[in-house]
Amino acid sequence: MKENSIGGNVLAADNLSTALEGIVESLSPSGVYLLTDSTVDEKVMPLLSGFVGSVKPEKIVVPAGEASKNISSLCEIWNRMSFTGGSRSSLLINVGGGMITDLGGFAAACFKRGIRFVNLPTTVLGAVDAAVGGKTGIDFNGFKNEVGAFALSEAVLVSSAPLATLPEDEILSGYAEMVKTAAITSAGDYSILLNAERVISDPKLMQEMMRRVIVRKVEVTTADPKESGLRRILNFGHTMGHAFESVCIEKGSPVSHGFAVAHGMLSALILSHILLGLPSAEIYRYADFLKENYPRLPLGCKDFARIYEIMGHDKKNRKAGEPLFCLLKEIGSPVFDIAVSRADADASIDIYRDLLGM
Amino acid sequence: MKENSIGGNVLAADNLSTALEGIVESLSPSGVYLLTDSTVDEKVMPLLSGFVGSVKPEKIVVPAGEASKNISSLCEIWNRMSFTGGSRSSLLINVGGGMITDLGGFAAACFKRGIRFVNLPTTVLGAVDAAVGGKTGIDFNGFKNEVGAFALSEAVLVSSAPLATLPEDEILSGYAEMVKTAAITSAGDYSILLNAERVISDPKLMQEMMRRVIVRKVEVTTADPKESGLRRILNFGHTMGHAFESVCIEKGSPVSHGFAVAHGMLSALILSHILLGLPSAEIYRYADFLKENYPRLPLGCKDFARIYEIMGHDKKNRKAGEPLFCLLKEIGSPVFDIAVSRADADASIDIYRDLLGM
Repeated sequence: MKENSIGGNVLAADNLSTALEGIVESLSPSGVYLLTDSTVDEKVMPLLSGFVGSVKPEKIVVPAGEASKNISSLCEIWNRMSFTGGSRSSLLINVGGGMITDLGGFAAACFKRGIRFVNLPTTVLGAVDAAVGGKTGIDFNGFKNEVGAFALSEAVLVSSAPLATLPEDEILSGYAEMVKTAAITSAGDYSILLNAERVISDPKLMQEMMRRVIVRKVEVTTADPKESGLRRILNFGHTMGHAFESVCIEKGSPVSHGFAVAHGMLSALILSHILLGLPSAEIYRYADFLKENYPRLPLGCKDFARIYEIMGHDKKNRKAGEPLFCLLKEIGSPVFDIAVSRADADASIDIYRDLLGM
Repeated sequence: MKENSIGGNVLAADNLSTALEGIVESLSPSGVYLLTDSTVDEKVMPLLSGFVGSVKPEKIVVPAGEASKNISSLCEIWNRMSFTGGSRSSLLINVGGGMITDLGGFAAACFKRGIRFVNLPTTVLGAVDAAVGGKTGIDFNGFKNEVGAFALSEAVLVSSAPLATLPEDEILSGYAEMVKTAAITSAGDYSILLNAERVISDPKLMQEMMRRVIVRKVEVTTADPKESGLRRILNFGHTMGHAFESVCIEKGSPVSHGFAVAHGMLSALILSHILLGLPSAEIYRYADFLKENYPRLPLGCKDFARIYEIMGHDKKNRKAGEPLFCLLKEIGSPVFDIAVSRADADASIDIYRDLLGM
């Protein structure tokens, strides 16, 4: 039984403490829990000292790192809530990256069969990827997100303030997901985001762009909460991006997910030109953005056969042996489930290599 | 992502193996798991040998008893499903009492963020109480149902065949919940059920009455899936019944939940007469049924002050210090959240004791 819902709001917060106090006041929970990890606790929590001082949430800290997204962290959260009188009208505030919002969202979804939770993402990727969409869960037996629940947060609090604590590479990695969401939903936002230096160097603008991208992602996921179709447009750039990521791992030179997706989007734009007539100018415009902001991937010309092979592995994402792509008719107009032949993939990879001078 | 749903059906099954084969055929899952406990595995599973032989489900057996409704059983189920290639389109069949359907329902609700499940209750109480309504979960840290999920089964398979393996007291305990559901939903079914000997001795009739009661309970829970109001009519007989149960435990003479509820219903009918004008004939008719089928509770006259005190403890179920009851205007017409004063409770207890010659 959830009470007093304020329903999946995306709120930009200039002052995190004040914003959290406002959320707690409007939800009037019987008790407030705050989940975070050890790194965020050290680096970001000082931004919340006003809130912590006034509301005095019960704080639960798990070790930083994906390894904490497991059953024992989950049980620890449930234990803490149990032993401190957590009830159906308690509130959990998740402060952290995707690991924390996935873990905390799942813990909240099941405690007393569901209490309310709020996400305060502290990374760009966490904000635009994990903190909205309702997918929560933990890794189990080495399988990612093997158990979990679909559960929507009451609110996502968007702020660029925590980003000051992050290395630049981590910001750029998440930024690629922002560009992706804009590419499938808004030509205007996409154009703004391609000027990465200007956006990232201006905290106000960055926060506003994060908010807009999250709102668009919420629109997509709300229209398709259980992944029956439309949500697949969010895979734009990911079919080849994931394959890039896998090959880099196989070669012992892993790259961040966002960097791989940034490159995957170039190949997706090339395929969009070949198969859906996207103007070629869009390819060049994006290639300039990519070269300015992201390093080349450690891939040689003989890796590309392996890339096509990997793309065909995903049973959920192929048709008659051919990998399925989300492509664009124009910026902001995606089409999903387009099968791409080996010949077209090869052609796109040739162009990709030419553009990057590989 | 749930595929091919057949949606919360309540199906009476004359042949359990054939019925289960039909369900599996209509759901066409990628794999079938069967969860049961050690007692049911020994006593009831022979009834399913045809199904097991043809469909060959992956069988998961936990030790019998409420203690198995815990986090380690849950992890064991997830482990087994993980390691045997369980997918989003797998199906879990829960064969057992309330412990098994609560545990298995929760395991299914979270594995891959939700796979389909079917309940085959093997006790009367499990059939009419736990196997429908969507409440799943486990006990945690000594708290009952501390973590769990709201998740509806694809189907509930109702059969009186497994009841032949149960002690008579266990059947009578569950039977009290059947009478309760009929009392709040159907004067006709209620009258049939008050002739307990006839119903219980006729497996066909018993099965049909179980099916009808479950369908009525599904109607109530569907109208109020998150317990915001109407579902409270299911508490009929439980406010005082729970207090009877607690006092018997305090005195070291525990009684089964169903027996306590059977007695709680008599007090609720008396209060219905006092406060809502239910004809007094209904009190006598029910008192006869109670005396014929259920033993007197081990309560003395000095226990009744304690009973009122206990009823006032439940914060969720009181108003201005007075316990709230579900009462009947007539059989089949419940009214919930009626505050009962100490004076009215005492009056009802006096009549209750007179009727039972205490």
